[in-house]
Amino acid sequence: MAHEDSVLLTRDGTTLTVTMNKPARRNALSEEHLAALLDAFEQAAESDASGVVLAANGPVFSAGHDFADVAERDHEGVASLLELCTRLMRTIQSVPQVVIARVHGLATAAGCQLVASCDLAVAGQSAGFALPGGKGGWFCHTPAVPVARAVGRKRLMEMALTGETVDAATAEQWGLVNRVVPDAELDGAVADLLDRATRGSPASKALGKRTLYAQLDRPEAEAYDIALEVMAEASQSPAAKEGMAAFLAKRRPEWPE
Amino acid sequence: MAHEDSVLLTRDGTTLTVTMNKPARRNALSEEHLAALLDAFEQAAESDASGVVLAANGPVFSAGHDFADVAERDHEGVASLLELCTRLMRTIQSVPQVVIARVHGLATAAGCQLVASCDLAVAGQSAGFALPGGKGGWFCHTPAVPVARAVGRKRLMEMALTGETVDAATAEQWGLVNRVVPDAELDGAVADLLDRATRGSPASKALGKRTLYAQLDRPEAEAYDIALEVMAEASQSPAAKEGMAAFLAKRRPEWPE
Amino acid sequence: MAHEDSVLLTRDGTTLTVTMNKPARRNALSEEHLAALLDAFEQAAESDASGVVLAANGPVFSAGHDFADVAERDHEGVASLLELCTRLMRTIQSVPQVVIARVHGLATAAGCQLVASCDLAVAGQSAGFALPGGKGGWFCHTPAVPVARAVGRKRLMEMALTGETVDAATAEQWGLVNRVVPDAELDGAVADLLDRATRGSPASKALGKRTLYAQLDRPEAEAYDIALEVMAEASQSPAAKEGMAAFLAKRRPEWPE
Repeated sequence: MAHEDSVLLTRDGTTLTVTMNKPARRNALSEEHLAALLDAFEQAAESDASGVVLAANGPVFSAGHDFADVAERDHEGVASLLELCTRLMRTIQSVPQVVIARVHGLATAAGCQLVASCDLAVAGQSAGFALPGGKGGWFCHTPAVPVARAVGRKRLMEMALTGETVDAATAEQWGLVNRVVPDAELDGAVADLLDRATRGSPASKALGKRTLYAQLDRPEAEAYDIALEVMAEASQSPAAKEGMAAFLAKRRPEWPE
Repeated sequence: MAHEDSVLLTRDGTTLTVTMNKPARRNALSEEHLAALLDAFEQAAESDASGVVLAANGPVFSAGHDFADVAERDHEGVASLLELCTRLMRTIQSVPQVVIARVHGLATAAGCQLVASCDLAVAGQSAGFALPGGKGGWFCHTPAVPVARAVGRKRLMEMALTGETVDAATAEQWGLVNRVVPDAELDGAVADLLDRATRGSPASKALGKRTLYAQLDRPEAEAYDIALEVMAEASQSPAAKEGMAAFLAKRRPEWPE
Repeated sequence: MAHEDSVLLTRDGTTLTVTMNKPARRNALSEEHLAALLDAFEQAAESDASGVVLAANGPVFSAGHDFADVAERDHEGVASLLELCTRLMRTIQSVPQVVIARVHGLATAAGCQLVASCDLAVAGQSAGFALPGGKGGWFCHTPAVPVARAVGRKRLMEMALTGETVDAATAEQWGLVNRVVPDAELDGAVADLLDRATRGSPASKALGKRTLYAQLDRPEAEAYDIALEVMAEASQSPAAKEGMAAFLAKRRPEWPE
């Protein structure tokens, strides 16, 4: 695989792990690295895995964009890089699997955006989160998009304007991550939450995930219009039929593909 | 009253209590039960009560939709059930009274949606909240609509994807309920919060509640357009005139009907 | 200056302080006071200051609108007052500087709206926050707009419907303020947070602040459309070029004007 260098894709049971593997570059999101990540998530989408872990090798989870790469680009070149980056973030939300970030070390700028874009996130207690553009010369405009939707407005302003690092415990309190555990227990906590989040019918959950992202951020009446039609149609699916039949018969369901 | 069996409507002073009364069915939201609840809230809307408590008899607050009822329906039949359910949720938000959920035991699926749809909620410490469709075959698409608007995005994802039960203390921390108290103190805490939420002019509060739901989830500029015009017009209402006159004269206001 | 009486504008280094100075009127937001505040923020916008502190003299931060002023106005007169008030709130968000509220004492109604409208807020532990219209005759329709966007939905309902005062610790937990400190340490905490929030390129931060407010409250795809184009264009700015060059050369950046 051409991308083996920068991104590792491994499978254990029903779980795919996408590992950023540029430790010496602090897993910076160069165009090549973004393309490799996108390719990995597109492979995941085609697979029969039920969950995806986004992990990283080295002391840093991801430092965001690579200034050496950005500095040489013109407006159009940067736009094309950001389009690729945004496409990655939205692909993480659109793959049918549950995606969980396994965060150790620092997740900054687009690295923090990756964490905010995963469905779930578990952090080791030494992890940190920052939108550092706010204390530099290039503001974290796009990373702030999903971070704003995870933390409250005043917390977003503090992160975006100070650019400073928020520790893991604060990130959990603010809703940027679901769980913080001692670093040594990170793998176990990720596996445990992912296991609990991948039970049930994969087809039903994939539709559920897609519909959640579709209805969020909208006025409630619009959100209901979207959710109601999907839920009525889903009631006729093999998974819904099997789930209800099993519940009523007090037996374990057998999920169809 | 035809609905006396499944829903009880009682009055104490200015408070109406709507009690789900199908304990053996875990207060499941069958079409008949939804219709009875809707009828109760429509009666409340016509009454001169200032507050409504939504309570439940039996060990479970509400288990959500009744699979025995849903399993036999086709797409259209389920759509019609969900439309009735959504109409109930939105009616709770549109009645002029302050509506508070009194939650003991489990509130799951559309039962959890009921809690999220009430203006306020107080829970006993043994209460639990879940969107269990995520671990089954029929995802909680519509229940997730108001739950998403009460808790943060990552917390929504955890509830919706794992389907697991969130305890009362966590629900309070996440903003799904306003207060958690020992089970034995639940009635007192509900009455206390409702009492504090129903002071002042009923007409002013009814307009206030309606305008809050109208401006939420919208870009701030649109929200201001809505709120400003309502507030300017409301300044000329008998209630506003009386409130300001009483304040300036340092006397107790007498609220007009 | 015509407005010296009601609003003081002072400068210390790169920080402008706007002080509400009507202690005997509890810094009530009369038309004259609103105009003076708006004038102060418009002066700030034209200045080269990097941060603005919104502070208050006297025991109360701000009691909101002045009923003596409102009671005499007709619909049109109140609408014009609320338009001025809303313009002030939105100007606070649109000035290029970071604006931080320094809150001691009570911030009620439009006074609470001021706190919610500032980018950041630090409160002394004796501060309190309320939307008292909910227990009177004139609901806090417009103050609820930015408060709704800072705290969760159930917390908004509690504040707006009860009209009661939320203490500073609760306000911090709910995300209405960034930090609560002992009253005696308030000035130091405000200066510290503002100092950390005003580092980096002022031009980049001003664009960042404007883009944050533009993308908030919108569906994520729309927010990305806004943020991506701004970020691509900003990559060609002198500030971004200098920031990246300094980072890559491991030297301190020199921010252009």
